[in-house]
Amino acid sequence: MNGITMKMNVDELILSALREDIPSEDVTTNSVMKTYSEGTCDLIAKEDGILCGTDIFERVFLLLDEKTEVIFQDGLHDGSAVKKGDLIATLKGDIRVLLSGERTALNYLQRMSGIATYTRKVVDALDDPTIKVLDTRKTTPNMRIFEKYAVRVGGGHNHRNDLSDGVLLKDNHIGAAGGVKEAVLAAKEYAPFVRKIEVETESIDMVKEALSAGADIIMLDNMSLEEMKEAIALIDKRAEVELSGNFTLENIGRIRGIGADFVSCGALTHSAPILDLSLKHLKKTGD
Amino acid sequence: MNGITMKMNVDELILSALREDIPSEDVTTNSVMKTYSEGTCDLIAKEDGILCGTDIFERVFLLLDEKTEVIFQDGLHDGSAVKKGDLIATLKGDIRVLLSGERTALNYLQRMSGIATYTRKVVDALDDPTIKVLDTRKTTPNMRIFEKYAVRVGGGHNHRNDLSDGVLLKDNHIGAAGGVKEAVLAAKEYAPFVRKIEVETESIDMVKEALSAGADIIMLDNMSLEEMKEAIALIDKRAEVELSGNFTLENIGRIRGIGADFVSCGALTHSAPILDLSLKHLKKTGD
Amino acid sequence: MNGITMKMNVDELILSALREDIPSEDVTTNSVMKTYSEGTCDLIAKEDGILCGTDIFERVFLLLDEKTEVIFQDGLHDGSAVKKGDLIATLKGDIRVLLSGERTALNYLQRMSGIATYTRKVVDALDDPTIKVLDTRKTTPNMRIFEKYAVRVGGGHNHRNDLSDGVLLKDNHIGAAGGVKEAVLAAKEYAPFVRKIEVETESIDMVKEALSAGADIIMLDNMSLEEMKEAIALIDKRAEVELSGNFTLENIGRIRGIGADFVSCGALTHSAPILDLSLKHLKKTGD
Amino acid sequence: MNGITMKMNVDELILSALREDIPSEDVTTNSVMKTYSEGTCDLIAKEDGILCGTDIFERVFLLLDEKTEVIFQDGLHDGSAVKKGDLIATLKGDIRVLLSGERTALNYLQRMSGIATYTRKVVDALDDPTIKVLDTRKTTPNMRIFEKYAVRVGGGHNHRNDLSDGVLLKDNHIGAAGGVKEAVLAAKEYAPFVRKIEVETESIDMVKEALSAGADIIMLDNMSLEEMKEAIALIDKRAEVELSGNFTLENIGRIRGIGADFVSCGALTHSAPILDLSLKHLKKTGD
Amino acid sequence: MNGITMKMNVDELILSALREDIPSEDVTTNSVMKTYSEGTCDLIAKEDGILCGTDIFERVFLLLDEKTEVIFQDGLHDGSAVKKGDLIATLKGDIRVLLSGERTALNYLQRMSGIATYTRKVVDALDDPTIKVLDTRKTTPNMRIFEKYAVRVGGGHNHRNDLSDGVLLKDNHIGAAGGVKEAVLAAKEYAPFVRKIEVETESIDMVKEALSAGADIIMLDNMSLEEMKEAIALIDKRAEVELSGNFTLENIGRIRGIGADFVSCGALTHSAPILDLSLKHLKKTGD
Amino acid sequence: MNGITMKMNVDELILSALREDIPSEDVTTNSVMKTYSEGTCDLIAKEDGILCGTDIFERVFLLLDEKTEVIFQDGLHDGSAVKKGDLIATLKGDIRVLLSGERTALNYLQRMSGIATYTRKVVDALDDPTIKVLDTRKTTPNMRIFEKYAVRVGGGHNHRNDLSDGVLLKDNHIGAAGGVKEAVLAAKEYAPFVRKIEVETESIDMVKEALSAGADIIMLDNMSLEEMKEAIALIDKRAEVELSGNFTLENIGRIRGIGADFVSCGALTHSAPILDLSLKHLKKTGD
Repeated sequence: MNGITMKMNVDELILSALREDIPSEDVTTNSVMKTYSEGTCDLIAKEDGILCGTDIFERVFLLLDEKTEVIFQDGLHDGSAVKKGDLIATLKGDIRVLLSGERTALNYLQRMSGIATYTRKVVDALDDPTIKVLDTRKTTPNMRIFEKYAVRVGGGHNHRNDLSDGVLLKDNHIGAAGGVKEAVLAAKEYAPFVRKIEVETESIDMVKEALSAGADIIMLDNMSLEEMKEAIALIDKRAEVELSGNFTLENIGRIRGIGADFVSCGALTHSAPILDLSLKHLKKTGD
Repeated sequence: MNGITMKMNVDELILSALREDIPSEDVTTNSVMKTYSEGTCDLIAKEDGILCGTDIFERVFLLLDEKTEVIFQDGLHDGSAVKKGDLIATLKGDIRVLLSGERTALNYLQRMSGIATYTRKVVDALDDPTIKVLDTRKTTPNMRIFEKYAVRVGGGHNHRNDLSDGVLLKDNHIGAAGGVKEAVLAAKEYAPFVRKIEVETESIDMVKEALSAGADIIMLDNMSLEEMKEAIALIDKRAEVELSGNFTLENIGRIRGIGADFVSCGALTHSAPILDLSLKHLKKTGD
Repeated sequence: MNGITMKMNVDELILSALREDIPSEDVTTNSVMKTYSEGTCDLIAKEDGILCGTDIFERVFLLLDEKTEVIFQDGLHDGSAVKKGDLIATLKGDIRVLLSGERTALNYLQRMSGIATYTRKVVDALDDPTIKVLDTRKTTPNMRIFEKYAVRVGGGHNHRNDLSDGVLLKDNHIGAAGGVKEAVLAAKEYAPFVRKIEVETESIDMVKEALSAGADIIMLDNMSLEEMKEAIALIDKRAEVELSGNFTLENIGRIRGIGADFVSCGALTHSAPILDLSLKHLKKTGD
Repeated sequence: MNGITMKMNVDELILSALREDIPSEDVTTNSVMKTYSEGTCDLIAKEDGILCGTDIFERVFLLLDEKTEVIFQDGLHDGSAVKKGDLIATLKGDIRVLLSGERTALNYLQRMSGIATYTRKVVDALDDPTIKVLDTRKTTPNMRIFEKYAVRVGGGHNHRNDLSDGVLLKDNHIGAAGGVKEAVLAAKEYAPFVRKIEVETESIDMVKEALSAGADIIMLDNMSLEEMKEAIALIDKRAEVELSGNFTLENIGRIRGIGADFVSCGALTHSAPILDLSLKHLKKTGD
Repeated sequence: MNGITMKMNVDELILSALREDIPSEDVTTNSVMKTYSEGTCDLIAKEDGILCGTDIFERVFLLLDEKTEVIFQDGLHDGSAVKKGDLIATLKGDIRVLLSGERTALNYLQRMSGIATYTRKVVDALDDPTIKVLDTRKTTPNMRIFEKYAVRVGGGHNHRNDLSDGVLLKDNHIGAAGGVKEAVLAAKEYAPFVRKIEVETESIDMVKEALSAGADIIMLDNMSLEEMKEAIALIDKRAEVELSGNFTLENIGRIRGIGADFVSCGALTHSAPILDLSLKHLKKTGD
Repeated sequence: MNGITMKMNVDELILSALREDIPSEDVTTNSVMKTYSEGTCDLIAKEDGILCGTDIFERVFLLLDEKTEVIFQDGLHDGSAVKKGDLIATLKGDIRVLLSGERTALNYLQRMSGIATYTRKVVDALDDPTIKVLDTRKTTPNMRIFEKYAVRVGGGHNHRNDLSDGVLLKDNHIGAAGGVKEAVLAAKEYAPFVRKIEVETESIDMVKEALSAGADIIMLDNMSLEEMKEAIALIDKRAEVELSGNFTLENIGRIRGIGADFVSCGALTHSAPILDLSLKHLKKTGD
């Protein structure tokens, strides 16, 4: 993750997470270790998957003590495949820091790696490089920046980040504006001009309207395979096409070769299981 | 959720989540709806499960506009079972508020309901009221207060909330202290006296040491069924017993009747799938 | 300004501004007015211009005391023209609140009205409705949301809000990517797909490259009138065209009828003089 | 600017400004530059003026990446005169940091230099070292600390910083207290005793009252030249005298030699145009 | 306390104190009271003293639940004398709110009343209305606004609030400037002109220097009674005089009649014992 | 104090305290010292006592300027006894930093040392190592983490830190639950299982109830010496025993040998006088 992003946007979230876990002190560790004691431990994969969140993992420990060292194995970085049992990294520093930061660091790394792993599987299951797999805004509150990054690491792409940086006209917006044409026009007038205008459609008729209104992107929402094909033929490259509607690892293969530009998949962020990782072999090395 | 907890600890997290989704404005909605327009919509269950997070769901909208009304169906509250297709609540207010708050409100409600639903299933699968099902600290960063609440709503109980409010002596703490006895003594000397002292053990020998050191709670970590039984017999009610080690919905039944006091289960918070819920039928009611 | 935007993004900036002016208390007012005393005063225009920031002006007082009333004259709202001497609004409330909030409220209102007034003049001087006048990111630190809003009120449009919500490939980006084509491709691959890709060009050759690379928007930066005409003819509607380079009220008329889509103008936010407004006629009405 | 002031009061404002411009990431730069790449660029004056804000300019980059170097030309510092075309400083660091910080750094430097330049012109136009030129509280919200510093750099002096650290009794305060004498007495009784008491007067009669009430400073507000002279003669050094009322670069010369101690001038902060400065010649130096 | 001060400066400190005491929830109260239950309780004086902090006390409860009512006995307000056993106020609201807010509310009220009580005793012991009793900056961190207010309520006056709003030239400042005259001049040149210049002196010679340098206030620090008298005679009303140096309730009487303007007393805020107050008679009134 | 605690929980409180004292700048110091000037000064004890808060004292200066050095005398650390006149530490750094940080650093150190000193006296006066002396929640708002630490340094122990991390069932909780047994049961059911359950009792009958309800700790509140003895005999080690009720340095000796486990003493934090300490001998060493 870019260092500027880290300082501007990520550090305060990590600090908030650390304070959630350490509102006053790590009372167990402080009971038995009154002073600095150097040690090392290993980060181990407990199942196969795609590694993601290495900078965040390291940052948790650095925010507790900037002298902590997290040394990843040569060649391992965000996006690398790891196998059950692999040594991923070695940590070195004050044992108290290793113990107090362990849970928060793993909570980030496991979730981010879980999403990257699941995204990779979805992209592989789709097996059509002409259709990009997109995430949605169905992310965990206060985790969006981490989860959207993990989608990219897993081979997916990002839809709009938030309500401010993308225009997506749905049913209700269209109704309020008085029609697709009026809605597209209003959005072009109001929104910063660097936004593309996307319209959500639920029928062939709406696709036609969106097309004639000059939408940049047309979303086909919850259509049948036949409807999607018809719509794509109708649009005929005059707008970009996004497919949407409960796509998961299990069913995404059915759109292979359909000719859409994008498919969005909420499951990437709301249903990916964590990747099991663990800190092991804590050893005192100094005195 | 208690109103004080809400004001002291929850509001700032919800506001942070709202700002994550609305860093400047909802540009789509503001393009087409320049002024107040009253409307209603429905919160619908799209699958069966346990409802959880109703206060949080409502609070998201109230923080955007305190005049919004969220009216839950009679008898529905945190802990209620809902069925696919059920109308859960009706929302009423400025349509712009309903649209801008929808995603954040659902992101909370779906995750909390997902955890409550999964917890309920685990408790049912265990089917032994003498063993309480506990959560762990394997929660999503900045979501702990919501996730631990959802565990309780689902019929589980909470382990320590964080590193400051509970003592759990692990291998490394014991090593640092120079033995189980020394570690327990150090913890009793240092920690606020209202804490119980828990010791993690991985063998019958360690259980014996913990027992003689006066541990209040003994955790049996990753032991076989036979070892667990032997340890429980050995402890013989002289300390509380917590079982730990990759318990899930699928395998928790095997400890039924074993005579432990608690079983902790990280999966409650790190692997529960969301419960699918949706806002539907947005209608303009005023002008 | 939308109520959600106000609560999510504006209130904390206003509060910060109020604390800047009242780090502990208004010592003068508190010396002589120990208790509540109701009064009224008038907001008066001291020169001609476009009114902007009425919600912010009111909000400053409401954040100090929610019972304060700010009643604008019938028909006056953001975008209205006011004349020197006009009564704009009447304020009613605790005199201490009126006195303590006056400066901060006026500091916002005068700057926002100044920008709206200047923008309106620029739009009028351009006198070509086919070319939209855009702002830039040359805004005052911590004032962007207010200043960009004022541009819209004055009849201008917004360019990207910030570095996160728009792609603008400049010289250095192009160099780093290894060419215009490579840069556009990299941006399409990396950026959320709802972004348009804009390329800054400084010569006809660069325009050709940008065009063939599939740029959505081409910025003609600091070109002569002749070059701009040549470029616009060359582009021939295949991309949107933005003109840029020290446009001001004095020189913007020269591009009238040129056939571009947009002209950006940093002066809107970095050089607009304030509009002189004043609170007058403070009167005690209660006791 | 003093290092303590920077850490205690300025850093959080700069960070807020940086987050305003980079709510998630610099998507353009990150598209084309995935890794560290060292480079340099030049800070160039595009018009003549007084340089101000060098520490702030540097700080913006240091907050993004503490390894960035900003090397000002020998002898150039806050208060130095620069000429159009002058090289002011050379920057060295990660090109991504130079690109992402550029706009925010310049937005501060241009405004502060603009105010210092305008203040210098006003002081020169007044051309009377016995009368100090003061700023007012008509500053841009959340910019006061920067703008008041720039006034000092330009050769002006600061009036009170805020409502808490100075007593200025106006019409309404006097009315509330029941008279000038009562108001001065109340202020002396209530305010921390290290404050001087200033009274705003609009007529010779009010000057007399203020004088006999023991005001430390008497402000002559919006008086004619004749009235001001009469008042100054009347006061005869028994209190300090501040002139006030729409003084600008154009009209300040008329009070030369009048014998006042201070003249306050809101235009210093509310109407100074920016000084045009630019980052140029970005070059990759490393690999 | 003024409502603006409360909103701008006090609320966030109270919220921080509440979060210090309720980092997640009041686990005891929430164990036994799951729902709203109305009740009342009494605030009782357990010793004689001066009441101070009534607004803060009430605000603690209002921040937890705005529907809580705190009704003070007729005629009782900040500055009132209370006797052991007096009923001071009755509280009414959700019993959970009364229980959860009790400790924080009392911690403020007891300390503020303690300071007001001690200040009153010091003023009475001095028994010389021509000498004002001042506080110092020896306050408890993050309590200054409360403690300085309490001093005023007890009949004392405030010295400068902080390092930014008052000039006090000590030994080291004078040394750095190169002499008293140079230091006073530098301060007059640099500091906002509404500040008085105070010089700390430790000998008659320094008093003479301060006087001739034009100091507005001269502090006589740690002088003997004879020296103070000599200095006061020497100054002869040409500057204000502040006495300083370990004045307490026990020894302040010795300066009665000495002819100084002020005496500062760090003990007011650093050594005042709390006033013992208590919440009693909690009764359930609703159901 | 542990480095993690410092970074996670203490730094923001110290920064808030520093901003309380330096809302914009140290105007006196900045008047006379425009540039860096190295110097040293000494921290001196002005009375006998127990030193506490050395890390906090140092941290105040490091937060202002990380290059400042605070070198404590060999062997002096938190808990050391100091004598009037002792040199405690030497400070070295920018004189402006030493001057600007002095007051805040001393305000912390004097209070913390005062509490440690008083606690040590109370422990010595009790003179019974079988009874641990506990603090309470009667701490100064926003000072709890410092004050509870000082109690430990002085030889005391900590009661629960806050309302979230300990269960203490009082009268009203018991009433709400419908009896001691019911209250204990509800607490065991609701509270994280790592909490001990403490019950406050005011009579022998309540002690009996608490005992039979399975309370882990029984508090004897405001009982006579005879009642306490009777209760302790009755409990007979089946629960831990805490004595409570206005214990101070003067009266704590009366419980010596009584056989309780703990005695809590609010006076430790609400009534300890500060320890007088001072910065002296500021000398310029560099130029």
